[in-house]
Amino acid sequence: MPTKSPRTDPAIRRTRWSTALTCIEPNKILVRGYALDELMGRVSFGDAIYLLLTGDLPTPSISRLVDAMLVSFIDHGATPPSTLAARNAATTGTSVRGAVAAGVVAFGRHYGGDILACRQRLDEGLAIVRSGEPMTAAAQEIVRRLVGAGEIPPPGFGHRYHTIDPRATRLLQIAHELEIDHRYTPFIRTLEHALSRHPALEERSLPVNVDGAVAAVCGDLGLPPEVADALLLVSRIPGLAAHVLEEQNREPPMRAIDPLAHDYDGPTGRKLGGRWK
Amino acid sequence: MPTKSPRTDPAIRRTRWSTALTCIEPNKILVRGYALDELMGRVSFGDAIYLLLTGDLPTPSISRLVDAMLVSFIDHGATPPSTLAARNAATTGTSVRGAVAAGVVAFGRHYGGDILACRQRLDEGLAIVRSGEPMTAAAQEIVRRLVGAGEIPPPGFGHRYHTIDPRATRLLQIAHELEIDHRYTPFIRTLEHALSRHPALEERSLPVNVDGAVAAVCGDLGLPPEVADALLLVSRIPGLAAHVLEEQNREPPMRAIDPLAHDYDGPTGRKLGGRWK
Amino acid sequence: MPTKSPRTDPAIRRTRWSTALTCIEPNKILVRGYALDELMGRVSFGDAIYLLLTGDLPTPSISRLVDAMLVSFIDHGATPPSTLAARNAATTGTSVRGAVAAGVVAFGRHYGGDILACRQRLDEGLAIVRSGEPMTAAAQEIVRRLVGAGEIPPPGFGHRYHTIDPRATRLLQIAHELEIDHRYTPFIRTLEHALSRHPALEERSLPVNVDGAVAAVCGDLGLPPEVADALLLVSRIPGLAAHVLEEQNREPPMRAIDPLAHDYDGPTGRKLGGRWK
Amino acid sequence: MPTKSPRTDPAIRRTRWSTALTCIEPNKILVRGYALDELMGRVSFGDAIYLLLTGDLPTPSISRLVDAMLVSFIDHGATPPSTLAARNAATTGTSVRGAVAAGVVAFGRHYGGDILACRQRLDEGLAIVRSGEPMTAAAQEIVRRLVGAGEIPPPGFGHRYHTIDPRATRLLQIAHELEIDHRYTPFIRTLEHALSRHPALEERSLPVNVDGAVAAVCGDLGLPPEVADALLLVSRIPGLAAHVLEEQNREPPMRAIDPLAHDYDGPTGRKLGGRWK
Repeated sequence: MPTKSPRTDPAIRRTRWSTALTCIEPNKILVRGYALDELMGRVSFGDAIYLLLTGDLPTPSISRLVDAMLVSFIDHGATPPSTLAARNAATTGTSVRGAVAAGVVAFGRHYGGDILACRQRLDEGLAIVRSGEPMTAAAQEIVRRLVGAGEIPPPGFGHRYHTIDPRATRLLQIAHELEIDHRYTPFIRTLEHALSRHPALEERSLPVNVDGAVAAVCGDLGLPPEVADALLLVSRIPGLAAHVLEEQNREPPMRAIDPLAHDYDGPTGRKLGGRWK
Repeated sequence: MPTKSPRTDPAIRRTRWSTALTCIEPNKILVRGYALDELMGRVSFGDAIYLLLTGDLPTPSISRLVDAMLVSFIDHGATPPSTLAARNAATTGTSVRGAVAAGVVAFGRHYGGDILACRQRLDEGLAIVRSGEPMTAAAQEIVRRLVGAGEIPPPGFGHRYHTIDPRATRLLQIAHELEIDHRYTPFIRTLEHALSRHPALEERSLPVNVDGAVAAVCGDLGLPPEVADALLLVSRIPGLAAHVLEEQNREPPMRAIDPLAHDYDGPTGRKLGGRWK
Repeated sequence: MPTKSPRTDPAIRRTRWSTALTCIEPNKILVRGYALDELMGRVSFGDAIYLLLTGDLPTPSISRLVDAMLVSFIDHGATPPSTLAARNAATTGTSVRGAVAAGVVAFGRHYGGDILACRQRLDEGLAIVRSGEPMTAAAQEIVRRLVGAGEIPPPGFGHRYHTIDPRATRLLQIAHELEIDHRYTPFIRTLEHALSRHPALEERSLPVNVDGAVAAVCGDLGLPPEVADALLLVSRIPGLAAHVLEEQNREPPMRAIDPLAHDYDGPTGRKLGGRWK
Repeated sequence: MPTKSPRTDPAIRRTRWSTALTCIEPNKILVRGYALDELMGRVSFGDAIYLLLTGDLPTPSISRLVDAMLVSFIDHGATPPSTLAARNAATTGTSVRGAVAAGVVAFGRHYGGDILACRQRLDEGLAIVRSGEPMTAAAQEIVRRLVGAGEIPPPGFGHRYHTIDPRATRLLQIAHELEIDHRYTPFIRTLEHALSRHPALEERSLPVNVDGAVAAVCGDLGLPPEVADALLLVSRIPGLAAHVLEEQNREPPMRAIDPLAHDYDGPTGRKLGGRWK
């Protein structure tokens, strides 16, 4: 005999709710107001991602910058723990989805978290600038806070492998070329300079890394921090999926995956030609 | 006192291994042989995904078709259980990554699995064609097998909401325009016709759906089934992330999410203009 | 030709590491120093969990209290979003593991997070007591802080369904019977009393809930907050697994799971007899 | 203006559904018909797990056997890829839940999957026995099938580390002592003997491992295969959680986790005394 269910508790009411993302009706799908079948073949995947996350299609400049960001983070080889989590899952013969999910949950405070943390420091610095201080003074104040809080290397600066992160250099250069470098990108360069001059950090090389560049560029694009964070997650999934497929196609099951004993045996020295030059 | 560790078991050896995806050296990142910073700003995210998963950059036609596929699956509103799993996770206040992961593991045999299952039936049918049978005969044989196995609706045909899936129509049309419709796409149309003529299925409308169209197009692109499957997973992540962000920005925490009591309150009737016409 | 791998970067060194949990040698498994095959058949699963997480086997009283906690949280029906995330995953036909994982990531700040948040407030209050204040004064101060921070209902108090949480009452009663009620459990009762007397909260019923009771009991057991949190996660897995199995055995695939339209149709009114009386 | 939502499609109906697991009413929680607060302090966590998954409380013998199974699988050190997936997630600073989820999805065909695969072969063999053949003949037939299918080592036999799996020996011994060794456990021993006599396998040692022992014991307990599988998943969560906590408490973040370079530095040689003798 069925008993009274929780719905009889008036505290738990059935509530209609709304979504502004995608409208589904029979034979009709609207994404942010555009017919999905009209978007197909006309807008790029990057543009559709931007549309879905922000509500509007990007201008050509923003489109190019967003694609550059998504490409910059698409993979970082077999070294990140996230990729190793996905490969360790894959070696057990779990599904591709299962193994990708293991990689998705393996983004944490120390990996991927720097975009949010860096954005916050940039926002603090730009608040000081808005209060009337020059950028250099604001940057020096942020460096003082970072050193005081023991946040060295600061989020968005320095890298385990790279002394100069080629992705950061390129992303900031593209933002500059496209004239999407209003406040955040100049400020992060000022901050980088202030870090290099701080007496306690003289010995260290702490250039802007890809997380810092993404934080700054997303700031200048006016994206809320959590959208920047979501973009990053979206951008790494192809890398996770590719590692899972390679693990399952190329390696024996249940192997002990040594994170330091791997080589790259793919092609090298390829150059973009034709339509990409 | 540390004891002997498993490595002393000769069965567990340290083995060097290789990856052909991405080469990481100090200040240098090669994706499938191309410098990542050269790819940035030049190739689209869709092209970079194709490069990473297949090893080569796409031709312009393939690029446009792959982007159309990725866009076609980017979101399907709040109706899929995968999206509801992500929203149920999000309402607890878990991290965006955690909630997206809940959506990723909520792809199963009955949701997302049809691409692999449909591809297998298409491969069976095309094997019959290669043995000398005409396409219509091969399609009739596949329909017999589907009916015999009780696989009605067959994987890749019919839809819970749509009598004509607008994404499937458009994707097959783009493949046709780009002349990437060698064998799989004509065969899936032949199969659709044979289904409509089968006496036991006369009453039912079983047109090709987006899973079927993706299975056929990936077949004509020469992509292995598991790469098609990975593309699909990649393409839905932005949708999952957008629902998670909307849930956390717009709804109260710990709400009971009624999957049938939601409305769309975003814009409608927007038209692509400018560079997208 | 393999290229130089990251290991050549001197910053990334191979480092031996240690674990104090389980020793694996050929034909021998020690858990926290005990032979696993000796533990089997002698210690209960609850005792083994305590051993693994804390390093020692529990006394009989602690054993009984830990088991009571684990049992208290084993399931809360189909109402929690975590359980609904797992069921939404299960309806897609994903693996049992995949669906359970969807439930695991669906614990967040608003669900399951109260144990840590409540523990922190209890620790604050007991710090005031240690500084010489009587318990009632310390409790009043904590209520002031909670009201000031807008944390109403406070973590560990009140419940969406229950005006008196039967699990909390029973858990605190068992702790009292076993004389494991040194400081945290009396203090949480004092805090409950202070809440009921606060003018701004007169109208509300905010009794200790199961999260609060677990937080207090774990405090009196001397368990670090993160171990309490891990115990909770462990204890709910059977519930998640049972819902996933029920969903897949009993319901049609790809159903729209209405969180408010379910009834209980199992047995009612069963009484513990025999050895459990 | 809200548009028509999917509910207007008559194919998607709101359907009441039922659960027989747990009844939630204000101030009352029944698990399988028993008041949860009565279960607390009276039944062990293992008994509550059995109740939730099967519908009934176990007899004392079954209780002891189920606890022995749950304990047997509680941890296997840092060697399983599942544990390494969880540790790789943990080193990024993700939440304990996120890292445990990475371990949960890292159970696959090659890890944890043997219980289901072994059970199927045992069921095949016992079907032959029921048709009138003696056990030895049935076992020889199953060995022929395993060798023919290339399933060597067969699921449930042999181990990467252990030549004799101490957990299997002990579990089968407990089942024998408790007289829960009706058909599956004698048959798996007969199968082990048949394997050792097969000419193609003379050189190999393929004793029953813990997966095989669990498959057989669950068979004799009358548990459906998917419940056996769920029990296994439940039993390993404490191990995953303990490794995640140890990783985050003891190791630096973002370390490269070498799966072969670890030692055990916990206690050794502890003996059960007192009430556990």
